Order: sequence, then structure tokens, then C-alpha cells
Amino acid sequence: MKIEVCYTPQAYKLFHNPNAIVVVIDILRATSAITTAFYNGVTKMIPVATVEEAQEYKANGFMVAAERNGEMVKGFDLGNSPFGYMNAKVKGKTIAITTTNGTQAIEAAKGASKIIIGSFLNMDTVIDYLKKEKKDVLFLCAGWKNKFNLEDTLFAGAIAGELIVKSGFETQCDSTLAAMHLYTLAKHDLYKFLANSSHRNRLAKLDLDRDIKYCLTPNQCPVLPIMKGKFLVKL
Amino acid sequence: MKIEVCYTPQAYKLFHNPNAIVVVIDILRATSAITTAFYNGVTKMIPVATVEEAQEYKANGFMVAAERNGEMVKGFDLGNSPFGYMNAKVKGKTIAITTTNGTQAIEAAKGASKIIIGSFLNMDTVIDYLKKEKKDVLFLCAGWKNKFNLEDTLFAGAIAGELIVKSGFETQCDSTLAAMHLYTLAKHDLYKFLANSSHRNRLAKLDLDRDIKYCLTPNQCPVLPIMKGKFLVKL
Repeated sequence: MKIEVCYTPQAYKLFHNPNAIVVVIDILRATSAITTAFYNGVTKMIPVATVEEAQEYKANGFMVAAERNGEMVKGFDLGNSPFGYMNAKVKGKTIAITTTNGTQAIEAAKGASKIIIGSFLNMDTVIDYLKKEKKDVLFLCAGWKNKFNLEDTLFAGAIAGELIVKSGFETQCDSTLAAMHLYTLAKHDLYKFLANSSHRNRLAKLDLDRDIKYCLTPNQCPVLPIMKGKFLVKL
Repeated sequence: MKIEVCYTPQAYKLFHNPNAIVVVIDILRATSAITTAFYNGVTKMIPVATVEEAQEYKANGFMVAAERNGEMVKGFDLGNSPFGYMNAKVKGKTIAITTTNGTQAIEAAKGASKIIIGSFLNMDTVIDYLKKEKKDVLFLCAGWKNKFNLEDTLFAGAIAGELIVKSGFETQCDSTLAAMHLYTLAKHDLYKFLANSSHRNRLAKLDLDRDIKYCLTPNQCPVLPIMKGKFLVKL
């Protein structure tokens, strides 16, 4: 049971492993929003790569979430703030979603045998699932426009450390080792550790500090979103 | 004066900055070997991407170095062990060189306005040069077949930290922050920190532990290799 961490969707092809469970990570904020959505009763989500595809779903009567560069795209129902999904109006709904990075990562991993959604919000649920499945694990960080980011890496490092230290997983992958080292430095105060990080600053400018604090608080939404065909559903 | 770190040649295009000095890094072992070569009197080097191009230079009477997967390619004069260049026979020579990762990184950065070669062996020389030039700096890690590696990242973090803390450079780049954090953890014993790293293990299997220790020992070769047209020369 080997673990690898892929820092960007661009690099996914180099890491593709047909036996691995792919954990897609976009802490700020797509996978945190998706986790929150299922916890609040959303039935299905349809991740799509482009705003054009999202518009088609909208035209066909779906509830649709669209975010680019941290902001909700005009004319859609939701962005990728988790708080948008803490609302009775989403309950029982199927929601199409496109985001700057998170849904691009899901798209990149399309050939994987199994794709699950990871965030600090469902951290222990992800760990329990991976321990039970006993398969190779590939963490796919969404990053920011195919550049490395810290928050996704920290989450990968948190889970990798737990699996390696306590459950017999192993790694020969430097990006996994780096993620684990970084999490060791960050774990006592993730918010403070990310003070100078690029995306925390990007979101702070958009007055989204509340989102950041929420997304970094573990285990508020114990659900596991998983891809089934073109849909995300709750396991 | 901003600093960015690009972890792999694959990602270079996302980081390309026409104003930046690009520092190419392949600690184990291409840029360490190149630094050692110039320190030992090599006049010029010609980095080439493929073994085929290297063969052409060989056919035309050049001394040629070729390495793939850690080993010297048969039929060539040198590999990328720095110890191969500590030899009177290289003095005054022009040497063509192709390696698994390092020369691919140089190739990727071809459009840069200035490319220099960095390694722990010429660390302070690189720092002095960047402080004097006062330009943006882009560290380009060679990695391993377009995957992240630890040793190149540590070197980038070492220099970035020095420039940011002492010389007014700045960064808004998460990969730079991560590199600096990792160097902070590693700096007291680089060799030990890399104990589980992928390439240290790859080279240990080839009985190259002596190379690793040499490549991690700072400031043994105070020279600065720099690209001029298709040649590397000593500044």
C-alpha cells in the first residue's frame, strides 16, 4: 500500500496508478464546499471543467455553482464558499459545479479507478475509509492554476503521516515526505502557518477570512463524497 | 525583486518571467558535477537534451558526458559523478553533457534572459551574484523525471531564505515558502534529512554514497557557471 502526493493537476499523468484511490484536495475551497454540501443534504453533484458546461446545466434547470478566481461567477446560484451550502434550499438537490482548481483536478483524475473528496472537514472519515480499503493512495492537490499550494499539501501530509505511522502504508515519494514534514511544522496552528500563503492572502482580499477558518477546522462534516460515473455522491 | 521556486521542468512555462535570473538546480548530481567541472578547469560545457545529440558531439571529437538513471551511458567519456571531473584530463576542455534531469531543466529554461547553475558546492557564490544583480529570481529544480525532489528544493529554500531575510527580496509563492520551511528543518544535517528521500536511495543502490556526501557539502567550488548562447561558461 504505497502513498504518493501529486502537487498539481498538470502532473497527474506522471502519477497515474490504476490501483490507487485518488483523493482530490482543494482545501480553499472546492473540496471543503463539496464536503459541506453533502453534509447538508445535497444528493448529487456534477463536477464540470468549464463555465460553458456549467451554463448548459443551468439552462437545463439544474442548480449550478460556478467560481473563478475566488468569486462566484455572475448568473449562477452558488460559488464555492462552504457557507453557501449551509442552507435548506440545497437539500435533496443535484448541483453542477465548476471551480478554478478543484473541478480541474477531478477532471485530470478521470481515468482513476476510484476518486474521493478530501478536506479537513471530513479528515477522519477519509482516514477511516483509506484504512479500510487498504489500497494504494494518490493524493491529488488542486493547487492554484497548476502551481503548488501549501494548504492542499498540508492536508495530504496529515493523512499520509497517519496512514504511514499507524497503518502500514509506505512511501518512496519525496513529495509525500515533504508534505509530512510541512504538516509537522503546521499542525499546531494551521491558520497561523498559512499567514503568508498565497491563497490565504488572495481570499483575505475578498473578505473571506471566515471561510478560511472554517475550512481549516477538522471533522465538522463526517461524510465521504465519492465519484460514481459523472456524479459525486455520498458513500 | 521577487522569488519563485518551480519544482519541475514540466511546470517551467507557468513560471517563466522574462526579467528573472533562472537558477537551475540538480543537486544529485548534474549541477554539482557542472560546478565541479568548471572549478577543475573545464572551459566550456554544452548541455544537450538527448543522448543522440551527445553522440553527434562525440562523433565530432568532443569530450562528452552522458548519464541516464544514475549511470554513465556506455561509450561516453564521463557520467555525472562530480569525481569524474576532478581530473587533469578535463582541464581546458569543452565538454558536451546530457543527464536524466539537469540538462532537461536547462533546456526547459532556454527562453530565460539569464541562466546560472546552482549547487551546494557554489552556494555562497550564487548568493553573492544574486544579491549583486538585484533581479527577480526563479529557482528551477530539475526534480526526477518531472517529479518533485527534496534535495533541489532544500537548496532553493536555503538561498531564498538568505535573500529574503537579509537582502530585501520577497515572495508570494507557496513553493518558495515550503522550500524555506523544509530547509529550516534540514539544515543542521542535510544528509540525515534526506535519509528516506527517493534519489538518495536510488544512488545508494548504485554505491554512490560518496557522491551524495560531496554534493551536500557547501562551498567547495566557488565558481559560477552561466549560459552564454548554447554554452555554459565560467562567469
